[in-house]
Amino acid sequence: MNHFINIQDIADLNHWLEKGRELAETPDCCKNLGSGKTLCLLFFNSSLRTRLSTQKAARLLGLEVMVMNFGAEGWNLEMEDGTRMDGGAAEHIREAAGVVGKYADLIGVRAFAGLEDVQKDRAEKILNGFQKYAGVPLLNLESATAHPLQALADALTIASNKKESHPRVVLSWAPHPRALPQAVPNSFVRMMRRMPVELVITHPEGYELDAFQVGEYQPVHDQASALAGADFVYVKNWSSFKQYGKVLSEDPAWMMTGEKLAGAHFMHCLPVRRNVVVEDAVLDGDRSLVLEQASNRTIAAQLALLHMLEAL
Amino acid sequence: MNHFINIQDIADLNHWLEKGRELAETPDCCKNLGSGKTLCLLFFNSSLRTRLSTQKAARLLGLEVMVMNFGAEGWNLEMEDGTRMDGGAAEHIREAAGVVGKYADLIGVRAFAGLEDVQKDRAEKILNGFQKYAGVPLLNLESATAHPLQALADALTIASNKKESHPRVVLSWAPHPRALPQAVPNSFVRMMRRMPVELVITHPEGYELDAFQVGEYQPVHDQASALAGADFVYVKNWSSFKQYGKVLSEDPAWMMTGEKLAGAHFMHCLPVRRNVVVEDAVLDGDRSLVLEQASNRTIAAQLALLHMLEAL
Amino acid sequence: MNHFINIQDIADLNHWLEKGRELAETPDCCKNLGSGKTLCLLFFNSSLRTRLSTQKAARLLGLEVMVMNFGAEGWNLEMEDGTRMDGGAAEHIREAAGVVGKYADLIGVRAFAGLEDVQKDRAEKILNGFQKYAGVPLLNLESATAHPLQALADALTIASNKKESHPRVVLSWAPHPRALPQAVPNSFVRMMRRMPVELVITHPEGYELDAFQVGEYQPVHDQASALAGADFVYVKNWSSFKQYGKVLSEDPAWMMTGEKLAGAHFMHCLPVRRNVVVEDAVLDGDRSLVLEQASNRTIAAQLALLHMLEAL
Repeated sequence: MNHFINIQDIADLNHWLEKGRELAETPDCCKNLGSGKTLCLLFFNSSLRTRLSTQKAARLLGLEVMVMNFGAEGWNLEMEDGTRMDGGAAEHIREAAGVVGKYADLIGVRAFAGLEDVQKDRAEKILNGFQKYAGVPLLNLESATAHPLQALADALTIASNKKESHPRVVLSWAPHPRALPQAVPNSFVRMMRRMPVELVITHPEGYELDAFQVGEYQPVHDQASALAGADFVYVKNWSSFKQYGKVLSEDPAWMMTGEKLAGAHFMHCLPVRRNVVVEDAVLDGDRSLVLEQASNRTIAAQLALLHMLEAL
Repeated sequence: MNHFINIQDIADLNHWLEKGRELAETPDCCKNLGSGKTLCLLFFNSSLRTRLSTQKAARLLGLEVMVMNFGAEGWNLEMEDGTRMDGGAAEHIREAAGVVGKYADLIGVRAFAGLEDVQKDRAEKILNGFQKYAGVPLLNLESATAHPLQALADALTIASNKKESHPRVVLSWAPHPRALPQAVPNSFVRMMRRMPVELVITHPEGYELDAFQVGEYQPVHDQASALAGADFVYVKNWSSFKQYGKVLSEDPAWMMTGEKLAGAHFMHCLPVRRNVVVEDAVLDGDRSLVLEQASNRTIAAQLALLHMLEAL
Repeated sequence: MNHFINIQDIADLNHWLEKGRELAETPDCCKNLGSGKTLCLLFFNSSLRTRLSTQKAARLLGLEVMVMNFGAEGWNLEMEDGTRMDGGAAEHIREAAGVVGKYADLIGVRAFAGLEDVQKDRAEKILNGFQKYAGVPLLNLESATAHPLQALADALTIASNKKESHPRVVLSWAPHPRALPQAVPNSFVRMMRRMPVELVITHPEGYELDAFQVGEYQPVHDQASALAGADFVYVKNWSSFKQYGKVLSEDPAWMMTGEKLAGAHFMHCLPVRRNVVVEDAVLDGDRSLVLEQASNRTIAAQLALLHMLEAL
């Protein structure tokens, strides 16, 4: 069974990127592969891009789509085994996942990090519960620690915009008023490790990413030297992993500006807070790739769904 | 016009069960019967199984589906005639139902019991309002007093698992921390009365089901003697009908266990609270039919929709 | 690019009404024109008729439909340019609109008036933001100041029910316990100005509609003289424009009754509060056109979508 849960579910990245170029030119080239099959998208958290791009991708493959906001339209799920369920949870994930697997040939799940308990987030209880008990291929629509659809869209975007064979790609932390998960940078770093790029990661001290997710790396704490010679600058806030889920800095000096960007391409997964994460001039300038990244989300979802359909 | 509102809307149960077996083998055997027609599903309460299985069933019949969470996406409806609507209700059910009937060829409605006023719940104001004013066939997605789609799925499950010509089927009340409606046991009992089974109903005193719904019956208050020789044990909590909507007992001695179950099949409509209603070992054991019941919800919905489409 | 944002987007009303008659007889006469294209409906406010009729219309044209409740399923949008987004808004409308335009060929947006700041409501920030930044045709599903789909459905209803070449159409204000927007009367008046009708507008003093929206007009403050000789009476509450968003009167003498209506047709956009806006006898009588108006919403949406598809 082919899941798409993390970057490692992509065996041959070049093959995926090549197929992505084909889908970009002919979005409906595989329009009957999902025919007669159903994808169920379950959202435990808010979504705009993922919600719409995955629906769009699924329909382009001929799949039926059922969307459910599990929190608002369903009820709380129990994740722990062996508990006496006399509290707020009305159903165990074993039954919920098993049941959805009876109605859908493919399932997509979005379940963010809580950012309070690192072990709980690492355990990816919702995602893993559906993988274990649904009995059908699972699509990660952003989990506590990974957002592989975004990273795949980012890879497609870099591949189609790069001028050099080994571009310098800088992941640059940015300030943000709220604590955000590490899923996007985790997956972006993992993806870049698979690409022919020079990856540089810059952030303030205390913002080191989880080595378990991205491997060991040498962060650059001086943003200016990290940005020097950059071809692509991927800007993103995340909360601290070491002091788990904490906002250690809102230092506006880390905001991305046109001056810092120099001539590099600007990337961000969106949503983005203007003039906090990045100044208006960058987003509105001609070096911004954010809408192309968003557009590539459809292609990324098509690739993931094709992969899942293959082994059905 | 063919509605599917309660068990009595099934004229020839054997014919339905036979057609159900055909649909189980060839789910898309009737895939064009709903073509060009639209089913609108209106949820006044949360739903997982009903939401997804009915959508799935509708698409298998070629129907277009529109889903609306009436509470969150709409507004409060007035049910009473003759009132001056200067309170919280923005629209009368006469207009709301009439309007939906202009956009949909078939309508499904879920509206639970409030469990505060027995006359109000018995009146089934939302369901009856849609039946009266929408002018199109109506599908009961669980109302205050009945859940016929669940009962039909249960009948399919028993029919395909029974070894004896007249199996002993025990409906066994279970404890639960919250007050739950009587819709599921009401419909289950009505359905079993139509099946070649020996039905036994066991619950603590005070939990007698509404005779108006299920007819007169002799409850067994001693669970052990009720369970003796059971082939199928259907476990379910419901709140008291006599002391309407009240939780009279949470006695854990009524929880279903593997020991009590002996070799009988275990059934439950889900969602179920583990180790309150039933112990883990039963749900995770090989005598549990809960996922097969859930799977049969799709077939039950197909049967109901076919019935509704027939007389259009 | 063809938007459908206001009445002036209809160049040749007679041609639209004629096409509407064709669609009324053969709803699926254009069923492949939208094939392979996607409509995304974004709701920032509750909806019943618009939600369902527009979905229905889109499917009749072969369009794929994606529905999103932006408030509940998304997040707050920033509308102002140049702000430092460190408050409650997680995304700027520039990005949100740009992104949705990557996934949909057509976008529909519902965003009501706030009724607190007239300049803000007049600015139609959400609607205009999507028009400006999405890059695809936009459908107004009711904005702060206009509801052209309703007005088009009303025009279709009057056109098919009129007996006289120039019927007398009376727009009659009605009491209501809550402050309602002026979008419906604004669009109705604009539409009637395009029709061969004698339009009379009657309301209490202080309820004059925005001349910027509907042009100058001479209100009749005496309801009885306004209604004399009416062929169609369109009843609707709206809040004061002069004392912006205020409820100046709840005078029950303005409620529509069968006696006042005499033999005229009764119209209302719904939802309607019975025995506050209009008495039961009128809604339940044979002169009421409210369900026909609602039914014509599907045709109105088909016409608007056909217009948008034409120039794609």
